[in-house]
Amino acid sequence: MSLEITFLGTGSAYPSPSRGASALVLRREGQCWLFDCGEGTQTQLMRSHLRAGRITKIFITHLHGDHFFGLPGLLCTLSLQSNPDASKAPVDIYGPLGIRSFLWRSLELSHSQLLFPITVHELVPTRDQCPAEEFKDFSSLDRGEEIPRGPPGRVLHLDPEEDSYLLVEEEQLVVRAFRLFHRVPSFGFVMEEKPRPGKLNVQKLKDLGIQPGPSYGKLKSGTAIVLENGATVSPWDVLESPIPGRKICVLGDCSGTVGSGAERLCRGADVLVHEATLGDGQTDKARQHGHSTPGTAAELARRCRAKRLVLTHFSQRYRPAGQAGDGDSDVTELKRQAEARLDGQEVTLAEDFMTIEIPMKR
Amino acid sequence: MSLEITFLGTGSAYPSPSRGASALVLRREGQCWLFDCGEGTQTQLMRSHLRAGRITKIFITHLHGDHFFGLPGLLCTLSLQSNPDASKAPVDIYGPLGIRSFLWRSLELSHSQLLFPITVHELVPTRDQCPAEEFKDFSSLDRGEEIPRGPPGRVLHLDPEEDSYLLVEEEQLVVRAFRLFHRVPSFGFVMEEKPRPGKLNVQKLKDLGIQPGPSYGKLKSGTAIVLENGATVSPWDVLESPIPGRKICVLGDCSGTVGSGAERLCRGADVLVHEATLGDGQTDKARQHGHSTPGTAAELARRCRAKRLVLTHFSQRYRPAGQAGDGDSDVTELKRQAEARLDGQEVTLAEDFMTIEIPMKR
Repeated sequence: MSLEITFLGTGSAYPSPSRGASALVLRREGQCWLFDCGEGTQTQLMRSHLRAGRITKIFITHLHGDHFFGLPGLLCTLSLQSNPDASKAPVDIYGPLGIRSFLWRSLELSHSQLLFPITVHELVPTRDQCPAEEFKDFSSLDRGEEIPRGPPGRVLHLDPEEDSYLLVEEEQLVVRAFRLFHRVPSFGFVMEEKPRPGKLNVQKLKDLGIQPGPSYGKLKSGTAIVLENGATVSPWDVLESPIPGRKICVLGDCSGTVGSGAERLCRGADVLVHEATLGDGQTDKARQHGHSTPGTAAELARRCRAKRLVLTHFSQRYRPAGQAGDGDSDVTELKRQAEARLDGQEVTLAEDFMTIEIPMKR
Repeated sequence: MSLEITFLGTGSAYPSPSRGASALVLRREGQCWLFDCGEGTQTQLMRSHLRAGRITKIFITHLHGDHFFGLPGLLCTLSLQSNPDASKAPVDIYGPLGIRSFLWRSLELSHSQLLFPITVHELVPTRDQCPAEEFKDFSSLDRGEEIPRGPPGRVLHLDPEEDSYLLVEEEQLVVRAFRLFHRVPSFGFVMEEKPRPGKLNVQKLKDLGIQPGPSYGKLKSGTAIVLENGATVSPWDVLESPIPGRKICVLGDCSGTVGSGAERLCRGADVLVHEATLGDGQTDKARQHGHSTPGTAAELARRCRAKRLVLTHFSQRYRPAGQAGDGDSDVTELKRQAEARLDGQEVTLAEDFMTIEIPMKR
């Protein structure tokens, strides 16, 4: 089953012609999940190989404009390009408390009536996710008004034991959020596939006298079978170890993590997407603005033993490698800074429209 | 004094890579006035020869997303790129009632504190500017909350005698709005320069015995002078007819006008920018969606005796002339349809980044 990430916007602060505002798509089994939706994301989608109509879930890391101002426009365009279909499942939108009010007000004031349902689930941040003076309580905004044409969403509170938020649990995967520290409360998201059953051990099956056929399928799918001699064979008797699923972590803007959720959830990530707004030489400035450098990102990747670190959300002064002019900063320097902290493990610099495939484990 | 219009977005409904969402800039004496601000306008500005920091006024024709969803992002980016300056004049924003609530909510929820003041002036539409069932009353939204860091704006009601709204009156120019009919209330804007004094009639001055010098300047600027013989010479005695100013009309989406304002205010326009979403062959469909065809636009231009009609806001199916593929509609057909109604008078098709200069009259 293919799994890939496509970056649609890799610039910080605002969209520019060389780097769009934050957005990336995780595509799995034909479904697209959008992480962040800065202004211009719908146009970046049109420029990419992806089909916006395949978006079924949207995750917003935090409420800075360059991460969510593109959301109303994207939804309106999706609606224009869709047909009314009463049976269509809602597009689920997850984001910090306040995202619902923004969407509701934008759709209401623009006289937009979406032709498909949306459901907005809001994550309630904790006060330690930003400087005390920056914290705003949006819990009472527009509470009386429901977004038209969508079932009500959930209000998600931190599970203090797990130090995380459970967003999605499906047969094959789980999505959780964890807390980050930024100028405003920010979140990271982890999509983790559940382990698949291991391979059938053909030698063991032969030893038990089980012939290839329907019994193999039952055992593989986790069902015990009874032999002609009355003995029961459990899947565990004939299956190799389960094959782990893939784990993708996408972090919002941050100068660090809050609590233990990030480190626990990102452990062994196949891909860790982390912001690196400025170079290590500007660590103080980055931290002051709630941002990371390659060093910050690599440090988390090292602690989590992430298999691949991808840096994104670069200051607009870093042009893509091929487009840099004389006065521009050299983005490859950020790569070197991160790799230095990871004993040379290769680090990837995201660019708009770059796609990374994550192969299944075997 | 130079005066030019630059189109930043000429597509309808949503921004695409070939046509941005609605936006155009009127540049006069170094100041930029933005008309509409669809999603992506800030990026289109970066791609153009214009400097976003020169924007002093913004006019929004109506509250459909493709005409104003780019506004919060543009303001946030302008703020990021500006220095705090307590003496800076506010950026004036004019738009239909509701625009203030949208802006306020977007800035509040995105934790944005602009480094320059803005003042939002709201035009109160009349109920006959859209189908009765589409009309929404936004008069009570967020009334208690003032937009941070800006003096309060005006609430502008229709002047029933003039059938227009007076927005700006400066020494050299006046801006008025007039009513249009669309799916939601829509407005057109007219920027008209005041007439300049005519040339001095040198022969008459000689006949009166007035020598070149300070007297010439006084008379030219409209001040009477007293001759040595005690006679008073009025400017009217020695000036040619006043030289008319230029008149630029920018209309929002519409299937027609409401009242007499449009026709009166647009009379003799040097440039009339009118939407033409679909071709004349789809007049019924266009009207049903509150839109115009080249025929609708040309008909108004003809009645107003506009000197130059510019069509814009094309359905995204019309690619720019040089970029059209086999399956695309031919945009030049729209030009021919409009010209046919104007006895062959040349009509201009707007394209993104096209600039039109409007010379001073002499």
